[in-house]
Amino acid sequence: MDIKTLIRKEVFEQQGYRTDITSCTIKMDAMENPFTLSPFLKDKLSEEFIKVPLNRYPEPGALTIRKRFAEHYGVGEDTIMIGNGSDELIQILCTALADSASVVLVPVPTFAMYRIIALNTGRTVIEVPLDAAFDLDLDAMCHCLTTKTPALVFISSPNNPTGNCFSEKKIETIIEKSMGIVVIDEAYSSFSGKTLLPLLKKYENLAILKTLSKVGLAAMRIGFLIGAPPLVRELDKVRLPYNINALSQVAAGFYIDHIDMFVNQTKEVIERREELLKALSKIKGIHPYSSEANFIFFSCDFDTDHVYRSLIHEGILIKNLNSPGILKNCMRVTVGNREENEQFLKALKKVIQK
Amino acid sequence: MDIKTLIRKEVFEQQGYRTDITSCTIKMDAMENPFTLSPFLKDKLSEEFIKVPLNRYPEPGALTIRKRFAEHYGVGEDTIMIGNGSDELIQILCTALADSASVVLVPVPTFAMYRIIALNTGRTVIEVPLDAAFDLDLDAMCHCLTTKTPALVFISSPNNPTGNCFSEKKIETIIEKSMGIVVIDEAYSSFSGKTLLPLLKKYENLAILKTLSKVGLAAMRIGFLIGAPPLVRELDKVRLPYNINALSQVAAGFYIDHIDMFVNQTKEVIERREELLKALSKIKGIHPYSSEANFIFFSCDFDTDHVYRSLIHEGILIKNLNSPGILKNCMRVTVGNREENEQFLKALKKVIQK
Repeated sequence: MDIKTLIRKEVFEQQGYRTDITSCTIKMDAMENPFTLSPFLKDKLSEEFIKVPLNRYPEPGALTIRKRFAEHYGVGEDTIMIGNGSDELIQILCTALADSASVVLVPVPTFAMYRIIALNTGRTVIEVPLDAAFDLDLDAMCHCLTTKTPALVFISSPNNPTGNCFSEKKIETIIEKSMGIVVIDEAYSSFSGKTLLPLLKKYENLAILKTLSKVGLAAMRIGFLIGAPPLVRELDKVRLPYNINALSQVAAGFYIDHIDMFVNQTKEVIERREELLKALSKIKGIHPYSSEANFIFFSCDFDTDHVYRSLIHEGILIKNLNSPGILKNCMRVTVGNREENEQFLKALKKVIQK
Repeated sequence: MDIKTLIRKEVFEQQGYRTDITSCTIKMDAMENPFTLSPFLKDKLSEEFIKVPLNRYPEPGALTIRKRFAEHYGVGEDTIMIGNGSDELIQILCTALADSASVVLVPVPTFAMYRIIALNTGRTVIEVPLDAAFDLDLDAMCHCLTTKTPALVFISSPNNPTGNCFSEKKIETIIEKSMGIVVIDEAYSSFSGKTLLPLLKKYENLAILKTLSKVGLAAMRIGFLIGAPPLVRELDKVRLPYNINALSQVAAGFYIDHIDMFVNQTKEVIERREELLKALSKIKGIHPYSSEANFIFFSCDFDTDHVYRSLIHEGILIKNLNSPGILKNCMRVTVGNREENEQFLKALKKVIQK
């Protein structure tokens, strides 16, 4: 067997997605909701888990949950599908494309998985840098749409790692000019209060991604894709029949049952974000950007490789984005609870004064 | 947007995997373990579930569990990866192939997902019928290996839906003659007591699939791929980083912690299978085949579409395989517990006498 001829060149050439497995007391690297469930709700959920017959397959297609989330998002049942996290939905989008529909366009910097998954599924990735304000470079994007006719465009808004929402007008222009599918990843939209869901009625080439990972259920891997029925019908054929396990389905129902509590947690994260932003902007040599997500992007006058390692030494894990170019000495910190934010600020000040 | 040019022709042309969602009291269609956990073990598992912080991402790559199952199967840690069910591992195998490695070979009849996933990932599927004894047609398989050089061969042994193990000698010849990867799906091997794991030392183009779905944890979606480290290393890059959710990881650990109990359930299923086979063979017009899996394949002198519907009317769901050719008037029944088997036999006798 000659593995080099059997496996895609793009797979060989890449390293795969790297996750920090550094074990720190305070984890502010992965945009998780910092709040756990109350003991009362934990018991309630536990009672639901225990009722599930683990020897039986989960409901295929998670139809019960799909129906509930269709109502939750105010969309038709035939417009929504559920994935094992948004990752799986990105993979389904890339997999379902015809071989001839090979180009995927992403503005950068953005979520790394668009590129990784597109390459792993045999696509060509074109990256267009954001403008100086971290908004979409509309001219460059439109030029690419015209000359390369990408089959897929991935736009994260609010964008990870920059934290800003892109101009809706620019996004709409891109949807209009695209011959392919434009995917708006709204993983962080609970923290911006903005959504492009209303545009779905207008554009059949628009697909919107949602997730429960940032709002309290990262452990359960539940993502949603919402789009026009003719598109969702085809994508759903590529979905594996039992992709959402039985307990994730229970947890998704639990989310809807206790939506007020989860929404309140999100509101609190937004309050903490504003406090954290204010505090960060007062630190000399730290330049945070305002955020519409549950994290703050900042650049430093210091070597962030050193800052990153020193923070780990203090028991705090954040994301070091440092790489040549626009992300030189940049970092991203997930908004924590009050105590975590205070500990982080204290540690950061200590670390940069060294 | 012209969806017909954007989406694969093969996706458009197929219906996707269909699952019976008929709700019956007695479910004997999906090869599930008929035994649930004892109240004591349910409580124990529930205590473990409740400890998981649902707001945090699962351990990427499920490394802790991977290590435990490497020990369980007696293989190296770098030879194993975990999937969201075997389905996801089949998908990873098909996705990772170079575009030029386009041919996938499957002996038929077999598990439907090999074909569906291969088509959805842009591969060409070649199907080679089993011989009259439901064993591999070695000449036809070898002819295909020589003329079409498939990049992947999927062999389910014991085979679904026929229930038999294929000749190990034939399998080994196929592995030897294949220029591509030969995947032996051992989803049902707990019920045959046979495994080709020892062959892994001999062949670097062999990959073996395992699953917890048939032995008691179908709800949790946990599958394993075991193969040579150079192959697993590349496949693992295609795996989505958080593919195994946190509670599935807990359940997988629980499986190892209580392996004796699960093994005893498997033993009991084997006993029930032999009883069921004996009882079925005594029914006039029913022709069961001996089985090394947790289901029994049988042909009928009756119209199985009618038998299928009538059984549902009696509250019993089994699998109707009826289609022109070798599966004409064939059915597959999953081995249930003693009471389920008795109910099924009673209902079947009633139904075919009408």
